[in-house]
Amino acid sequence: MKVINGSIASPLGFQAQGVACGIKKNGGRDLALVVSDVPAVCAAVFTRNLVKGHSLLRSMDHVSGGLARAVIVNSGNANACVGPQGDLDAMAMAMETARLIGCPTGQILLNSTGVIGLPLPMDRLLKGIETAVRTLERSDTAGHAAEEAIMTTDTVPKEVSVVFQRDGRDVTVSGMAKGSGMIHPDMATMIGLITTDCAVDVRILHETLFEAVSTTFNRVSVDGDTSVCDMVAVLANGMAGNATVTDRDPELSEAFHLVCETLARMVARDGEGATKLVEVIVHGARKAEDAYRIVQAVAKSPLVKTAMFGEDANWGRILTAAGYSGAAFDPSRCDIFIGDLQVCSGGAALAFDETRAKEILASDHIVIHLEMNEGESWDRVWTCDFSYDYVRINGSYRT
Amino acid sequence: MKVINGSIASPLGFQAQGVACGIKKNGGRDLALVVSDVPAVCAAVFTRNLVKGHSLLRSMDHVSGGLARAVIVNSGNANACVGPQGDLDAMAMAMETARLIGCPTGQILLNSTGVIGLPLPMDRLLKGIETAVRTLERSDTAGHAAEEAIMTTDTVPKEVSVVFQRDGRDVTVSGMAKGSGMIHPDMATMIGLITTDCAVDVRILHETLFEAVSTTFNRVSVDGDTSVCDMVAVLANGMAGNATVTDRDPELSEAFHLVCETLARMVARDGEGATKLVEVIVHGARKAEDAYRIVQAVAKSPLVKTAMFGEDANWGRILTAAGYSGAAFDPSRCDIFIGDLQVCSGGAALAFDETRAKEILASDHIVIHLEMNEGESWDRVWTCDFSYDYVRINGSYRT
Repeated sequence: MKVINGSIASPLGFQAQGVACGIKKNGGRDLALVVSDVPAVCAAVFTRNLVKGHSLLRSMDHVSGGLARAVIVNSGNANACVGPQGDLDAMAMAMETARLIGCPTGQILLNSTGVIGLPLPMDRLLKGIETAVRTLERSDTAGHAAEEAIMTTDTVPKEVSVVFQRDGRDVTVSGMAKGSGMIHPDMATMIGLITTDCAVDVRILHETLFEAVSTTFNRVSVDGDTSVCDMVAVLANGMAGNATVTDRDPELSEAFHLVCETLARMVARDGEGATKLVEVIVHGARKAEDAYRIVQAVAKSPLVKTAMFGEDANWGRILTAAGYSGAAFDPSRCDIFIGDLQVCSGGAALAFDETRAKEILASDHIVIHLEMNEGESWDRVWTCDFSYDYVRINGSYRT
Repeated sequence: MKVINGSIASPLGFQAQGVACGIKKNGGRDLALVVSDVPAVCAAVFTRNLVKGHSLLRSMDHVSGGLARAVIVNSGNANACVGPQGDLDAMAMAMETARLIGCPTGQILLNSTGVIGLPLPMDRLLKGIETAVRTLERSDTAGHAAEEAIMTTDTVPKEVSVVFQRDGRDVTVSGMAKGSGMIHPDMATMIGLITTDCAVDVRILHETLFEAVSTTFNRVSVDGDTSVCDMVAVLANGMAGNATVTDRDPELSEAFHLVCETLARMVARDGEGATKLVEVIVHGARKAEDAYRIVQAVAKSPLVKTAMFGEDANWGRILTAAGYSGAAFDPSRCDIFIGDLQVCSGGAALAFDETRAKEILASDHIVIHLEMNEGESWDRVWTCDFSYDYVRINGSYRT
């Protein structure tokens, strides 16, 4: 398993492009297209929000066919909550892409991310699709442009590629993702796209994706808000030439996990206004559900997140969040560590070195570790600190 | 029912004081004492956080006796998560107050609010108790001092008094409260204290308090964090001379509700860093639980709260929060109003007057109203906006 420099267009038989079609006010790239030369088996997971975007709903229908040729995503407009027009626009977006590529409409996955409640500017979008199809390339430059085109308030691109050997062939798995607000697990927590040239059965593809997502993208929280457009999709076109994977495969799972975890951490680190990646780990919980509840509550607590921003070892807020999480535990058995520094023992304060604490908290990756000392269950979530910039960015997003 | 100028010492037979004993770094008042001349029947509700402060745990024991002479509360230190010493300190605090007043230790209610994990400076605290007892007064000046002494990051005092007639006598109900961070309903959401000279049966007192709290203090959210020291307590000493209330009483309920709602709104409005009071109302939900889930999710959403700070009519975030709340509803039937301005109809955008929206959002009390059009259930919660100051205050609270 090797991490390589690459892009969403690295696996064999994929092309990509990202263009500016005039949806984003700043004139930046806002339309991403990724195309497989041949029909690829596909799988995806979607937001559990009851309210769903129109483009996303169309994708949910199309992905059930099991085959996709392309994924088209616009940023700057979520195509959500605009009424019947939203469904028509989503369909038009898929139909135009399918027509230009030459495939059934049902083989187009699509999504839209950005402001909710505004109709898509369809004239510009359809022109953009034409430009994107015409300029498709199998190059990292084009792959990077596709990533750029799905970004909204992201400050850095999020891409990763890995290669492993199968049947004497190189198999490549590449991923790209966008954050960076309205991020909270309840699948999915953002838009993520994975391409691979691996030949794999559609059922195995879905299981492998679902498993990788559950411990990576679904373990990211920026602000506790689950968006209406979140999706992680994968296209596997089989062009690596390996024998089709028809059973759960440790190496493919590892590759998916590595891609998803790398992207998930990038999304958390680049959360809106974030200055630090904060990793919350619980060990020794009675049940998996208890561990999950505790990591979620700690990672969502605005008080914990502002303390991390202020580099304040305020472990009382960590224990407090665990206490209201709904998890069953005995506070008097709980130990808390910030980095390698123990700050709480058996639920009570411990004299600790404040200078060392400051050093740990000044780094851009902080690990908060709760040891419950009651069982074998554990969980982990990635989040970020809560800064002035989160407020600045979100106080004036729409207008 | 009449609202009067007054303080926690307004009901007959109550005295109060607030002194500076040196717990708060800034030298401000940090020890509040409220004493009834005669044993009062008492009731209280407490935080549902699994982690509880040592002083609060002592109060939970004492309140079960049903009688109290005094309430003693320090601010600046929560006496929480400090191990066995915390229990001993709480007991010493109660014992010293009881000794100086001349009552059983079990008739002292107590609480501590402030930083978690530091032992109480008992020498200063015990001296403070002596000073407070020596300077007790039946005056509004002393009552206001008591309120000041329970405040932490509050910027304004929170006090209210009402009077009604019963059996030809004036009955007074007074309340005071403190916020203003780590505020989220799961009873209680802060420290609140109510005194009354009404003669009332202890069971009715508890029921009346519980009912008033459930629709007022338990409907406030500042940051979604439920503290370990939250409590609302009431002392009723019967000195108004009315015939003892032994059944549910509409007027007493109204007085308690008025006091609790006034304080609850003040706590929300004075949430850490708040610039506005935000009231979230849901009507027409299928079930009470659905209405509750929706108001909670909207009021907790950092994205909604930052939009209110930025005066941005971003109703998509409101519908999104409803969507992930776990409530069952049909998004296509949901109407959303900001103030009297409808911004969403049947789950879809509505062209609305942005100038009028700006006017509404510029006020310091914003009402967000979701009409689900599916049933008869409703709920309401008070919260505040999320500002730069929330981050500033909480980035450096402990150090």
